[in-house]
Amino acid sequence: MIQQKRSLFIISDGTGITAGALGKLLEHFPATSFTKVRLPFTDTLEKIQSARNSILQSTLDDGNRPVVIMSLGNIDLRHAIKEADAYYIDLFNAFIDPLGLELGQQPLTGAGIAHSVMGNSYHERMEAINFTLGHDDGMTHTGLEEAQVILIGVSRCGKTPTSLYLAMQFGIKAANYPLIPEDFERGMLPSVLHQHKDKLFGLTIKAERLSSVRSERRPDSFYASLDNCRKEIASAENLMRGAGVTWVDSTSRSIEELSATILQKIRLPRTLI
Amino acid sequence: MIQQKRSLFIISDGTGITAGALGKLLEHFPATSFTKVRLPFTDTLEKIQSARNSILQSTLDDGNRPVVIMSLGNIDLRHAIKEADAYYIDLFNAFIDPLGLELGQQPLTGAGIAHSVMGNSYHERMEAINFTLGHDDGMTHTGLEEAQVILIGVSRCGKTPTSLYLAMQFGIKAANYPLIPEDFERGMLPSVLHQHKDKLFGLTIKAERLSSVRSERRPDSFYASLDNCRKEIASAENLMRGAGVTWVDSTSRSIEELSATILQKIRLPRTLI
Repeated sequence: MIQQKRSLFIISDGTGITAGALGKLLEHFPATSFTKVRLPFTDTLEKIQSARNSILQSTLDDGNRPVVIMSLGNIDLRHAIKEADAYYIDLFNAFIDPLGLELGQQPLTGAGIAHSVMGNSYHERMEAINFTLGHDDGMTHTGLEEAQVILIGVSRCGKTPTSLYLAMQFGIKAANYPLIPEDFERGMLPSVLHQHKDKLFGLTIKAERLSSVRSERRPDSFYASLDNCRKEIASAENLMRGAGVTWVDSTSRSIEELSATILQKIRLPRTLI
Repeated sequence: MIQQKRSLFIISDGTGITAGALGKLLEHFPATSFTKVRLPFTDTLEKIQSARNSILQSTLDDGNRPVVIMSLGNIDLRHAIKEADAYYIDLFNAFIDPLGLELGQQPLTGAGIAHSVMGNSYHERMEAINFTLGHDDGMTHTGLEEAQVILIGVSRCGKTPTSLYLAMQFGIKAANYPLIPEDFERGMLPSVLHQHKDKLFGLTIKAERLSSVRSERRPDSFYASLDNCRKEIASAENLMRGAGVTWVDSTSRSIEELSATILQKIRLPRTLI
């Protein structure tokens, strides 16, 4: 039921990450099929001219004028791009300039303010990524006391991508630790985790989904069989219940949704996130 | 030269990722110190009431009303939150509803539209993360033909976090491969990379910075010494120059900036990113 075709241009004098993030809002309009064109580092009149030509061409190709989300600090470039007909969402006009009035300040207008290495917390995010990669899948017990959260759950339930998202997006040091058959036989969480109970957060998953994910790696294995997946999941949930660990089902949640849920449940300094 | 304190509330009925991304624009106002408060999954009147109380409290604490970036599909919740005095940036009012007029469509108003597992390309992003983790640091040659980009450079120049960012944010299958002393002695790129020359992209780094990064891992080592870093970097740049590989300096560029640069240089289907 796609009814129309449009192009979405993300035009920025920096990375275009912020403008691109706003582009996610187009998912509220599933009846339009958008072709996304990113034009980062558009910081000269020549590049603006080239962007303008692409805008005109897309209008011809699609039969509709495009949506343009733009973040350009230089006012001359802003005016120049708008000579081409399009539906413009101008982050400076719409947000930054009015916000400056509220705050009583002139905004910085240099390129790439929002995503430079000078931005708040960049170093913390890089540290968190390194920590998370070094504490993936229970690979070491060393330094777990530095973790801000430790995700636990059966193998292939989504711990790794969720940990990485927490680190990359929010600068959270997120370790993760698998729950494995030896733990289920013993009927206890791995002993190394006992002293970190306040940082544990569980992921679970539906057996059908787990079996399908595991089958991609090891088809026709006992490990991937629906029966084994059911038993592992039940055992893991029992362990977590017994230890008082909160958990959430990853089956139909994105890493963004899982991360937002985890951040709500763990206590962190407000400024961190 | 912080002149004022404010709170920034990110209030969403979903993850708040899009609203939070827009919060990056506050970095255009360095004279205000913002305390960020994320309130995802705010989807009931009770939660709105609690958010309203936090807004009032922050005004007392900071001496200024907060900035609220909100994404709430339900119009009653939108009205209810605004009973508290704040500077509101309402993504539905400011963007989604006007865009609906342009597109001639009613927007979806359900919670969490933008970041559900149903969103465009979620599965591709998860595949890309798995691929990238499985092809980090030259760990395997298998499947390199599936890579969309292969980052190369000396050890610790930023290949891993950049690869992960490309995968997580854009769904790009990004392998990375270290250039090591054996390659420099031979004076050639690793032979496995020869058949993938069109996918190679180089990272380089300033010697002082590399030495400092390596020293965190292996203090006082030959590996981390400024002299060795200088030689490795010169050799790596020579190799890349000889092979016609484009490279960029990671020293003062964030992973967002590096990724945006890489995406500009490699050829990808437009809809992918």
